[in-house]
Amino acid sequence: MNKQILLKSRPIGKPTIENFEIVDALVPLANDGELLVKAKYVSVDPYMRGRMSDAKSYVPPFEVGKAIEGGVVAEVIESHHANFKKGDMVVAPLQWQETQAIAANKVTKLDKKTAPLSYYLGILGMPGLTAYFGLLEIGKPVAGETVVVSGAAGAVGVVVGQIARIKGCHVIGIAGSDEKATYLINKLKFDDVINYHTTKNMEEAIAKYCPNGVDIYFDNVGGEISDAVIAHINKGARIILCGQISLYNDTEIPIGPRPQTTLLKKSALMQGFIVSNYASRFPEGIRQLSHWLGKDKLSYQETIIKGFEKLPEAFIGLFEGKNTGKLLVETE
Amino acid sequence: MNKQILLKSRPIGKPTIENFEIVDALVPLANDGELLVKAKYVSVDPYMRGRMSDAKSYVPPFEVGKAIEGGVVAEVIESHHANFKKGDMVVAPLQWQETQAIAANKVTKLDKKTAPLSYYLGILGMPGLTAYFGLLEIGKPVAGETVVVSGAAGAVGVVVGQIARIKGCHVIGIAGSDEKATYLINKLKFDDVINYHTTKNMEEAIAKYCPNGVDIYFDNVGGEISDAVIAHINKGARIILCGQISLYNDTEIPIGPRPQTTLLKKSALMQGFIVSNYASRFPEGIRQLSHWLGKDKLSYQETIIKGFEKLPEAFIGLFEGKNTGKLLVETE
Repeated sequence: MNKQILLKSRPIGKPTIENFEIVDALVPLANDGELLVKAKYVSVDPYMRGRMSDAKSYVPPFEVGKAIEGGVVAEVIESHHANFKKGDMVVAPLQWQETQAIAANKVTKLDKKTAPLSYYLGILGMPGLTAYFGLLEIGKPVAGETVVVSGAAGAVGVVVGQIARIKGCHVIGIAGSDEKATYLINKLKFDDVINYHTTKNMEEAIAKYCPNGVDIYFDNVGGEISDAVIAHINKGARIILCGQISLYNDTEIPIGPRPQTTLLKKSALMQGFIVSNYASRFPEGIRQLSHWLGKDKLSYQETIIKGFEKLPEAFIGLFEGKNTGKLLVETE
Repeated sequence: MNKQILLKSRPIGKPTIENFEIVDALVPLANDGELLVKAKYVSVDPYMRGRMSDAKSYVPPFEVGKAIEGGVVAEVIESHHANFKKGDMVVAPLQWQETQAIAANKVTKLDKKTAPLSYYLGILGMPGLTAYFGLLEIGKPVAGETVVVSGAAGAVGVVVGQIARIKGCHVIGIAGSDEKATYLINKLKFDDVINYHTTKNMEEAIAKYCPNGVDIYFDNVGGEISDAVIAHINKGARIILCGQISLYNDTEIPIGPRPQTTLLKKSALMQGFIVSNYASRFPEGIRQLSHWLGKDKLSYQETIIKGFEKLPEAFIGLFEGKNTGKLLVETE
């Protein structure tokens, strides 16, 4: 038995369990220069929704009938490369498959002592680095400024808010439940959190919680929540486009108020990015994030679902706002 | 007789002649430190539409019942300041009034030998500096890149396109008549120009004239023309928001396709600006633009309407796309 999860069909709108298929694959042979690895933690991330469509984007689409791919922490069970041995732990972009072969030069060996291994899919992995480079390189936060982050309880949002606090900013989160709000305020020391599910008028809420206006908006969600924030930006504001999860399942081109007039009046910047733009600086990011973790300046929470076959349902849960912090699946 | 033009009422939608009133004012006395000046060239610019509304923006609104203000080249007819003498020519933000007093520290003395004096309202003034700093500081053009400029035949657009050519870029203009297109291609050496009035499908036209995609979009117009350009931006594109003339007369919040998803997929930047952000560097800009003018690397065309009382109708003409190059009024 070597379970593998395929994209059975492209989702139209929100993904459903029917878009996935669990099959049995052969255990492959590892050739020279390759490793045979067994998945331990498998990441589910909002950006993967984009790869399920066949629209052109910054990463090529998944193919129907082939395995889904994403970030995985795995154990080396057979090594055909001098730098690795059985029992080593690695992180790599891998298939949703229990056991597979991968070229040794495509994986990163993990130090088991620095942090729990699952962290390399979260705060020390793609989401943490996304928060780090997006906020610092595009946002350029200055102490005393007001930072708003949407999707605040998500894997990226929790890190953005905490780094903004480290930098001396006033931090307002936007999240989807009172439990999340309590966690962000009490545990992560956000200054305030707006629950968009129970807030009737988001624009009024932004005005209330950001009396000095918004200097930096780290946008994970897009849509109407972002419209409300953009209406309150200050002169010289920076809007970091990290994700647009509220729009990923749209089947038509999303329509809304044009932000250009506001950006023009406010001499403001709006910039999209993908974390791989900063790939050459990942070691710096991981070093700084590890340092803050070690000094308890960063707090980190995971939602771990057990069972490889739970991956499709975990992924779908991302769009239902169920997770606080990083959502991932442990294979056993 | 000292004619003055007041904002009689705030325009709703497109400005009309009824929004203006011509009255006779007293010739004021100039105090110590002031100059009495007589308007020679008066500028009409799209941004002034914004000041006719009472919405908060980067410059305070005009007041109803008070004189319109804008860029004016004027002659000193009486000086009460040691640095100026009768006959000096100056440029300053002044009222739409034939003769007026102004503090000497608010005006810039002009060198009559460098260029025709009207140029200080155009290529060596606000529009030229807007093109220079917007394109170079936000756009950062690299030789071989594709630059699209909308409002290409306007006072800013003609300078943007020519600087982009100087920098070795492939330059596509968007303008509203075949006459303008011919002028931009033959005289200003744009690579191609799209006439948006006669083009049925702007997206197809952008795809045709920008086969390598769009690296820089200098946006003077906004709206559907911009939607078509944004649909074809390349990875790492820069969109410079300079004006949104197609939206200035809108009475409701303009709605359109949200650009955020595209900016995100393309790691692209969209930034608004106002030329005064670069005020400390104006001398550098004027020096460089004068140098290019002197070397015939920049060509410049004005549309000059004669008669102070023609100012309202000249201003309204901006929104009818009548002008090629800089539009201004000569008082006599």
